[in-house]
Amino acid sequence: MSTVSLLSIVESCDKVPYNETEYFSQQKIARFLVNEVTIGYVDEVALLEMEKYIATVCERSFRVSKQFVTFHPEVKTFEARSEVIMDLLKYWKEKGVFSCLTGWRNEFYPVYGDSKQPGNIAFRVERAGASIFGFRTFGAHLNGYVRTETGLKMWIGRRSLKKPTWPGLLDNIVAGGVSYGQSPDETIVRECDEEANIPSDITVNIKAAGAITYFDLTERGLAPETQYVYDLELPQDFVPKPNDGEVDCFYLWDLAEVRQHIGAGEFKPNCALVIIDFMIRHGHITSSDEPDFLEILDRIHRRFELPGPKGC
Amino acid sequence: MSTVSLLSIVESCDKVPYNETEYFSQQKIARFLVNEVTIGYVDEVALLEMEKYIATVCERSFRVSKQFVTFHPEVKTFEARSEVIMDLLKYWKEKGVFSCLTGWRNEFYPVYGDSKQPGNIAFRVERAGASIFGFRTFGAHLNGYVRTETGLKMWIGRRSLKKPTWPGLLDNIVAGGVSYGQSPDETIVRECDEEANIPSDITVNIKAAGAITYFDLTERGLAPETQYVYDLELPQDFVPKPNDGEVDCFYLWDLAEVRQHIGAGEFKPNCALVIIDFMIRHGHITSSDEPDFLEILDRIHRRFELPGPKGC
Repeated sequence: MSTVSLLSIVESCDKVPYNETEYFSQQKIARFLVNEVTIGYVDEVALLEMEKYIATVCERSFRVSKQFVTFHPEVKTFEARSEVIMDLLKYWKEKGVFSCLTGWRNEFYPVYGDSKQPGNIAFRVERAGASIFGFRTFGAHLNGYVRTETGLKMWIGRRSLKKPTWPGLLDNIVAGGVSYGQSPDETIVRECDEEANIPSDITVNIKAAGAITYFDLTERGLAPETQYVYDLELPQDFVPKPNDGEVDCFYLWDLAEVRQHIGAGEFKPNCALVIIDFMIRHGHITSSDEPDFLEILDRIHRRFELPGPKGC
Repeated sequence: MSTVSLLSIVESCDKVPYNETEYFSQQKIARFLVNEVTIGYVDEVALLEMEKYIATVCERSFRVSKQFVTFHPEVKTFEARSEVIMDLLKYWKEKGVFSCLTGWRNEFYPVYGDSKQPGNIAFRVERAGASIFGFRTFGAHLNGYVRTETGLKMWIGRRSLKKPTWPGLLDNIVAGGVSYGQSPDETIVRECDEEANIPSDITVNIKAAGAITYFDLTERGLAPETQYVYDLELPQDFVPKPNDGEVDCFYLWDLAEVRQHIGAGEFKPNCALVIIDFMIRHGHITSSDEPDFLEILDRIHRRFELPGPKGC
């Protein structure tokens, strides 16, 4: 089994170079602004498609220059912004412009504006389209572990081969995107039921444990991602069951086994990061055994200039 | 009891603005380079004093310009760099140039160079002088807590009124600087004995739990600080005892009390940050009750351009 460093696993999620301004300029990436606050990043390909849309379909939707994308001055409210983004995405989906839109979810993500305002959601966007505009997205991941006489073990899921993203790779016991209108806490409890059949008398023991952030580059665009992390100590006799067809099976592994599978690149990368964060918080990855300890901590707490939720 | 936000406590440690390049330029702060890698920041006052020292005492020590400080080209080894820094600090101490040097420690801190090299310590520096040059410094802090029927309680120290720094303020049960030649793990165990009389049959249960970083501005200079954090669940009948005169007394408080004292500004600020990190990791500060949740996580994991240890 070949093994790569934990830092290289982190780097496979945190891909955007740290000299961001220079990088955006070189790559001709425009900033998406709302009220002069940057809320996303639009690459050259998407920018060109937006220009075409404005010229041929709907003039009063967006304004686009080489450096900036904004809504048309008449598009000023939550509802209006959500509508023009939706119209654009539907048009692109119909025309087959971006392949990511074939995975249309009928699920909305919130996009946050000026973080000085409480309840600062600027608009909402179809989940499948968020990364075309480089909007911040939020998820919730659960570390499900069991305390045994020989140490901690962790439940690990195997993603279904039918999933459109990362089929067949290893995953946290439960994880999901935080949709518009849901809190991270609500998301993780809902996913516990949907993905692993964990009943409510067990989910009451879920503990919030922070969040990780990283700036990914996908084939669909830039992805500044935040994953809220949760821990759940499970009873020794509890066995999770796949419930919604998204998971093929679950394994119960000790942490050394989990680490081997991480090193072998068998995990969906951001799920590996959630486990690396767990292992750091629980003293299983330390400064004395991991040469990249501080660098890993740094890279899984990437700073974004984009606003996030001010209260959930 | 007046209460301020947790974010404002974090901001009282993480003071250097995030547009660092602009800030350094405005404030006329020079970068301290070793082999073209930035390892520290020298403000205008210290820069002037270095110029005087080079002109009047020792020409073959440093080279100084408005933007950069380096060692003289003949000063190329760990030993030579350590010696010229020590000579400069001793001279400043004798002449009474910087008041921070009256707190001379006879204790060395490592200063790291190019992080691509393992064992990358470029030189060592007297602890009291580190922030004059804005070098990265490292500490180790312990959260000592007790599990009770009504929830977690935490042991909190009251710093001696005789301490030169932060006299009389509240503190973690145990904390100390990571000296040259010691690992963070060794530091925390040593301090457990020195500061709180915690015996080795209890310290074996210490768990590493990550690190926090923040970029402080002190009256002595810039302070890019890293604190390795550790948790120790203490037996209910254990009572820490001040051992070396640095702590006046210890309190055992539930987490709500600890939080009140944090909000009232009674803690040495970086110790409050260690506890905020603890409360986040243990689910006592969450995204649903803390509006600045993600911003706090971001600010206690500040990224530094300066190299750190590559293995300890």
